[in-house]
Amino acid sequence: MTNPLSPTLQLACDLIAQPSVTPEDANCQEMMIARLEAIGFKAERLRFGDVDNFWAVRGSDGPILAYAGHTDVVPTGPQEQWDNPPFEPKIENDILYGRGAADMKGSLAAMITACENFIAEHPNHNGRIAFLITSDEEGPAINGTVKVIEWLEARNEKITWCLVGEPSSTNKVGDIIKNGRRGSLGAQLTIKGKQGHVAYPHLAANPIHLVAPAIAQLSAEHWDNGNDHFPATSFQISNFNSGTGATNVIPGEAHIVFNFRFSTEVTEQQLRERSEAILNEHKLNYDLTWTLSGQPFLTAEGKLVEAAAGAIKAVTGYETELSTSGGTSDGRFIAPTGAQVVELGPLNATIHQVNEHVCASDLDKLSLIYQSMMERLFND
Amino acid sequence: MTNPLSPTLQLACDLIAQPSVTPEDANCQEMMIARLEAIGFKAERLRFGDVDNFWAVRGSDGPILAYAGHTDVVPTGPQEQWDNPPFEPKIENDILYGRGAADMKGSLAAMITACENFIAEHPNHNGRIAFLITSDEEGPAINGTVKVIEWLEARNEKITWCLVGEPSSTNKVGDIIKNGRRGSLGAQLTIKGKQGHVAYPHLAANPIHLVAPAIAQLSAEHWDNGNDHFPATSFQISNFNSGTGATNVIPGEAHIVFNFRFSTEVTEQQLRERSEAILNEHKLNYDLTWTLSGQPFLTAEGKLVEAAAGAIKAVTGYETELSTSGGTSDGRFIAPTGAQVVELGPLNATIHQVNEHVCASDLDKLSLIYQSMMERLFND
Ligand SMILES: [Zn+2]
Ligand SMILES: [Zn+2]
Repeated sequence: MTNPLSPTLQLACDLIAQPSVTPEDANCQEMMIARLEAIGFKAERLRFGDVDNFWAVRGSDGPILAYAGHTDVVPTGPQEQWDNPPFEPKIENDILYGRGAADMKGSLAAMITACENFIAEHPNHNGRIAFLITSDEEGPAINGTVKVIEWLEARNEKITWCLVGEPSSTNKVGDIIKNGRRGSLGAQLTIKGKQGHVAYPHLAANPIHLVAPAIAQLSAEHWDNGNDHFPATSFQISNFNSGTGATNVIPGEAHIVFNFRFSTEVTEQQLRERSEAILNEHKLNYDLTWTLSGQPFLTAEGKLVEAAAGAIKAVTGYETELSTSGGTSDGRFIAPTGAQVVELGPLNATIHQVNEHVCASDLDKLSLIYQSMMERLFND
Repeated sequence: MTNPLSPTLQLACDLIAQPSVTPEDANCQEMMIARLEAIGFKAERLRFGDVDNFWAVRGSDGPILAYAGHTDVVPTGPQEQWDNPPFEPKIENDILYGRGAADMKGSLAAMITACENFIAEHPNHNGRIAFLITSDEEGPAINGTVKVIEWLEARNEKITWCLVGEPSSTNKVGDIIKNGRRGSLGAQLTIKGKQGHVAYPHLAANPIHLVAPAIAQLSAEHWDNGNDHFPATSFQISNFNSGTGATNVIPGEAHIVFNFRFSTEVTEQQLRERSEAILNEHKLNYDLTWTLSGQPFLTAEGKLVEAAAGAIKAVTGYETELSTSGGTSDGRFIAPTGAQVVELGPLNATIHQVNEHVCASDLDKLSLIYQSMMERLFND
């Protein structure tokens, strides 16, 4: 690059260069805290278990706009499949490459520079601006945002508006904001067969063979139609592992991990019962452990949604669209406190993939959108 | 043990004490060669790649009875699951414990002592007695019996009768002999989907979901009815692995390993075509690599089968049964040369398992059976 990078892109690159594979923070939070303290934020470092988190706030009273995000990234997968090393950020033809470019170090950089610019213009802004940052969003999410929210609740501190920096956009930056999320219900299923030798199948019971028809039925099942706010409930198997590695051994068990993303048209309880009914119909011998990651939640239209939509229109010229599709985010932990929650970030096309990337100038736009939101929320 | 062990049991224990995990021979073959040379065998050591083999023969012309076997054993698995260390042979209540006790160091010991006793009585026996021993039966079987057979063929040496010491018996020693084996056809199947996030299933294609109906159909398929000599062809999936480990990622590929054990009612080619037709019917995108481990083979009744059956009847008092069920053995490499091939060894109930064991006195009976077979083959 011959031209110097914009402050947002420079910070995004600096963050990507830290190999903060979940739950590692790899110094990203200290880099953010240094920038925030320089513009008057007070930061509190909150380490729970092996997870670094921080809460930083500027201002002493009034409604709180909290930027929520995570410094951790998902594993890179096979590094040799990357065209460029995942932790060596590279910008080429206005594309920024690197693990976390889209999810979500680009957003973190945009949040920081938006605040720097907003505060330079409005050093005595109304209300409070806060950051709620974790390094455990991509991992078990036990010692991250959940714990910070508990800590805030214990101090009787309430977030009014929460802007989660997750990559919400689909084709153009800001074309979609998420004002809610489907529920997420996970399961670990162990199908029990009987181990044996492939030459003596009558002495064994092959769990892969036994479960295949049930998998076919679960995959084909129509769980609901969704509704105005939520797309239809979906079922996906993320992992299926069975076998000893030997080619002549019938395995004794099959280990299956699956997940529902569900609308408000079905309940967690119904999904559990319907799944188990299908397994029972196929007369399977199994162990099944369920984990509810989050109930569905929704932020109806209101001041935060209006500020986001207005800022997007002002910066990009187009109208945004509200959606509740896509993955869970830490918004599921913040919404139940009564906060309005909106997710707004760059394009999510390549997140969690090899050669993750984001449009570089989108991050500059995102910084302007975040800044414009603060104008709308604090200076009306 | 206060009583001295029989020569067969003593040699079995000495062989088990060598940790000859495939492809290691761990000096077993030298122990055998020393015993054989002492009774007039001429041994040729044949090392191919990292595999020790030997061919030893006694006599200069006439039909060859070859004892075929392997000194290698399968891995022990977790040693802490063994009641007694796997390479420390132990005899208790007429049970000999140790890795290889049944498969097939007990048989090797019985072969040697049978020859010692037979030759002591018939130093000028008709025909030739040979040993074809490998340390690569439990491994890839590339540098073992296959190569020794090629070497024999190059010398234009033909085995007339082959006695493979694999554990053929089910309830009583000698109750079953194998006069053939099913074919074995293996396959490695990769189902190609498209990786993605569980929250965006419409952007991904889940290979586990895609393949489940085909697996159900393959598992339910009736391949043939078998025939008088062979049980029905069977299909078994030994390994199914898909998933990144993460619970929120739809995997890009599923890796499946399966195996046919097939009768002479279908051909390798038909099994390949029928499998691929099922995969194609389900419109799967896949890579499929086939490996033929062995064609089915059969030794119809004749002098070798009669000698085995007669010897079993003479030593044990009961009639043996011919069978072609069970796993493959190195017989698959020997039968195509035109040799009559019979497998006769101890009970196979615990082979390849933790706490592998064999009835100690069965090994003494087995030595007598082998000796009686030589009487029948050479001194009529
Ligand atoms: Zn994220
Ligand atoms: Zn064996």
